[in-house]
Amino acid sequence: SQRDRIQCSSLEVESKRTFLKGDKFQLQDVIEGQQFDRDILSAIFEVAREMETIEKKSRGSQLLNGYLMATLFYEPSTRTRLSFESAMKRLGGEVLTTENAREFSSAAKGETLEDTIRTVEGYTDIIVMRHFESGAARRAAMTANIPVINAGDGPGEHPTQALLDVYTIQREIGKLDGIKVGLVGDLANGRTVRSLAYLLAKYNDVKVYFVSPEVVKMKEDIKEYLTSKGVQWEESSDLKEVASKCDVVYQTRIQRERFGERSDLYEEARGKYIVDREVLDVMQKHAVVMHPLPRLDEDTLECIKGLTGRTPWLESVLKSLITVDVDADPRAAYFRQAKNGLYIRMALLKLLLLGW
Amino acid sequence: SQRDRIQCSSLEVESKRTFLKGDKFQLQDVIEGQQFDRDILSAIFEVAREMETIEKKSRGSQLLNGYLMATLFYEPSTRTRLSFESAMKRLGGEVLTTENAREFSSAAKGETLEDTIRTVEGYTDIIVMRHFESGAARRAAMTANIPVINAGDGPGEHPTQALLDVYTIQREIGKLDGIKVGLVGDLANGRTVRSLAYLLAKYNDVKVYFVSPEVVKMKEDIKEYLTSKGVQWEESSDLKEVASKCDVVYQTRIQRERFGERSDLYEEARGKYIVDREVLDVMQKHAVVMHPLPRLDEDTLECIKGLTGRTPWLESVLKSLITVDVDADPRAAYFRQAKNGLYIRMALLKLLLLGW
Amino acid sequence: SQRDRIQCSSLEVESKRTFLKGDKFQLQDVIEGQQFDRDILSAIFEVAREMETIEKKSRGSQLLNGYLMATLFYEPSTRTRLSFESAMKRLGGEVLTTENAREFSSAAKGETLEDTIRTVEGYTDIIVMRHFESGAARRAAMTANIPVINAGDGPGEHPTQALLDVYTIQREIGKLDGIKVGLVGDLANGRTVRSLAYLLAKYNDVKVYFVSPEVVKMKEDIKEYLTSKGVQWEESSDLKEVASKCDVVYQTRIQRERFGERSDLYEEARGKYIVDREVLDVMQKHAVVMHPLPRLDEDTLECIKGLTGRTPWLESVLKSLITVDVDADPRAAYFRQAKNGLYIRMALLKLLLLGW
Repeated sequence: SQRDRIQCSSLEVESKRTFLKGDKFQLQDVIEGQQFDRDILSAIFEVAREMETIEKKSRGSQLLNGYLMATLFYEPSTRTRLSFESAMKRLGGEVLTTENAREFSSAAKGETLEDTIRTVEGYTDIIVMRHFESGAARRAAMTANIPVINAGDGPGEHPTQALLDVYTIQREIGKLDGIKVGLVGDLANGRTVRSLAYLLAKYNDVKVYFVSPEVVKMKEDIKEYLTSKGVQWEESSDLKEVASKCDVVYQTRIQRERFGERSDLYEEARGKYIVDREVLDVMQKHAVVMHPLPRLDEDTLECIKGLTGRTPWLESVLKSLITVDVDADPRAAYFRQAKNGLYIRMALLKLLLLGW
Repeated sequence: SQRDRIQCSSLEVESKRTFLKGDKFQLQDVIEGQQFDRDILSAIFEVAREMETIEKKSRGSQLLNGYLMATLFYEPSTRTRLSFESAMKRLGGEVLTTENAREFSSAAKGETLEDTIRTVEGYTDIIVMRHFESGAARRAAMTANIPVINAGDGPGEHPTQALLDVYTIQREIGKLDGIKVGLVGDLANGRTVRSLAYLLAKYNDVKVYFVSPEVVKMKEDIKEYLTSKGVQWEESSDLKEVASKCDVVYQTRIQRERFGERSDLYEEARGKYIVDREVLDVMQKHAVVMHPLPRLDEDTLECIKGLTGRTPWLESVLKSLITVDVDADPRAAYFRQAKNGLYIRMALLKLLLLGW
Repeated sequence: SQRDRIQCSSLEVESKRTFLKGDKFQLQDVIEGQQFDRDILSAIFEVAREMETIEKKSRGSQLLNGYLMATLFYEPSTRTRLSFESAMKRLGGEVLTTENAREFSSAAKGETLEDTIRTVEGYTDIIVMRHFESGAARRAAMTANIPVINAGDGPGEHPTQALLDVYTIQREIGKLDGIKVGLVGDLANGRTVRSLAYLLAKYNDVKVYFVSPEVVKMKEDIKEYLTSKGVQWEESSDLKEVASKCDVVYQTRIQRERFGERSDLYEEARGKYIVDREVLDVMQKHAVVMHPLPRLDEDTLECIKGLTGRTPWLESVLKSLITVDVDADPRAAYFRQAKNGLYIRMALLKLLLLGW
């Protein structure tokens, strides 16, 4: 009952053609951003657009009626889980939720991931898995006879985030070839900007700007990859100058702990590498600001919490002050971006369960 | 995308007319008991009665088919959550559950309540929120473009509990004008009896009796409010005498920690201010005993747990002995009261999602 | 509102006839394996076979449309919970989930199990309860006016596991009368093999072999019970010899802590009492290996985790090496056994909610 290894190697970038059957592509699992080429991305985005229409116009779609999805989460990630479960339910499907799947593998009741998958696949039609170990999703997909979607496996992959990022660029800017993207903030840690860079390399004539403090700059492997794919890239410490040229400014959180003892560098980074009203002012009219969310760094939160004599009302106002001037700008795309995650996940569920 | 402030002020008692559109009322959020006047209460109760019929007669109502509710709980409250989720599912709607919403705002992934709401509103049609901070529900309602129901925000409000209490009085006694209500037990702490007193003040010719130990007596603000609204009230330490005159005896838990060092006063309070068979014996035939549940004080539980040589069976019997003589009396209304919570929540979901 | 005691005694083995009404049987609660006789078992298995067809052929059954099940779990058991929730949803029913029902009875909000049941029964049509105390399920069933299914109550009963074990034997071997079953591993602890022995005693001409280390051998009460029912049994320490004669080899986990200081005995037991390729080689062609799952003992897991320089991939391979030679054999029935749990639970939900 274990899936054929040959079929499994379809997960590799090299053998992506097994996703295509005749003129249609056949999606079996979603394990890593790398498994998609631009044709498949284009097909997924087309379905995502249809999903947008379904979500907005036809309350109570029955497209996935009778299908059951299990969210097998070995670590909590409420945002991602809700997005997947909403996607399934918006299409009329049903959900089995496990937020404490670690219990499966507790000391008291040791069980391999493989055994858990073999059991759970008997109860459901598709598995959405979040795991703390890199590579876990691939192992699950190799074991399961039903589709598996990777909802993040440790420091490894989070392919649906990468897909929704690229989809958002296409939706907001109207194209992917020829775009200019500024990646801003902590570029060394976190898989988001790395995955995005990988996917952007599949398009033509793309230019990427890396804008980050020295201690958290983009690693060499990505730069080499981009170069090898003919993507132009440039490093800069001038956020405003970059922002004025870009179609997309992709902001990420800057976290204090990455700076170690150098809190002076941290404070400087917070001042220099965060999109605010002044940055917006130099951006082009058609450009957008994106952010993977959550947005606030813990330090800002701590600062607000430390205010004496604060009331919930004051706190709310304070928090608004920090962001409302950017939020109110139509170019602030991050909540639309989060919503696009819903459409991408609806599309993937539809494609994996019903096919093209 | 933030809601107009003027619209939000409809939450204030003063501008309650914005709930009314022509002859119909328009309910946008449920934030606090105070937002309702007797006309709106009457309308909600009418819908609750219809819900009672739906729940009992037509298995599988599809009234809210295609609608999605998110239970965004920042602290667990299984009883309240189950009641809301049952209400939604009894009407054919679907639910996204988050019991650990605190994770959204964890140190590792700081996020404001406002950002969480802006994300979650993209996944659902209505948000039911439980929060540990007073005022959180109002902040959520101001941010969201979809309806928000407050399922309790810290020491603040728990409006659906207040609504189900008043609805239960009407269902059990058949009227609200002219009723006599005894509030018994700990009247200083907890929002239940306070909210109930506020709502009763909206009716005519109501008489309220406060029956409590000195250390946990009703606070002055409520007494002044009742007086200002022309509601007669009286303090008494004679539970039996009050019970003989009342239509409703509303019992609350008495907790040891409220008495500090004075365990003697605590023991006296437990003897004097708890409804038992003897109290029932002096009550009128049409009168009822209500309780917000859970019912047992922790001390009684500890006492039972401390019994040596106890078996589950013995424990069960012991627990029954404490209450079964009251439970068996048709005037014990507390489980019907809990069930009324279902009908009230069905009514609110219907009104917020479909309108009047 | 409390159920009649006479009715409740139908839970006892002695009065099993109350399950039968005319030619039909009436199932009210599922509390313990002992409540079933072979006629009822046979009827349940017949329905389970129908459920197998429904699950495989008719996506989106609406048999239990409009019905609501609450999974009231006082301790987590993701595997069991998922199986029940999948069963309900495969039949078109809906689910209210509580994984932390202990909160109901927390120190802060003391509440008896009886009060919880009286509240929850107002929100749902059937309760599936997991509890940490033996006898809790019976107490719940005595209180509730709706059906209760015991999903395990502490060291007490786990009747749906017992049912699925017997069902699996019938499905795999084609008969129950005249079968030869080897119970292997830790026979002293855990309710699984004990319950199975009880149920096997209801069939004719059954032979049971106990194969276990001395410290965890089958207790006297079961042996006496089997003798009193005319079931032949035999103890042996030669797994291969027994395996060659049996229709079913039922393996259970052997846990280090049962051996105290005697880790030498433990190591010996792991070598001698675990089904591997060599044991499979002597088994008959039609025979099967069963296991209640999870399968891996914690020690094996620890051993794998202790490997230096391991990668997820290596770990996965290592884990496969331990079992894959048995897993790949068609006589390894344990994942089919887990799947049968789904059919048995679908059958019980159908029988309890709709009747025969």
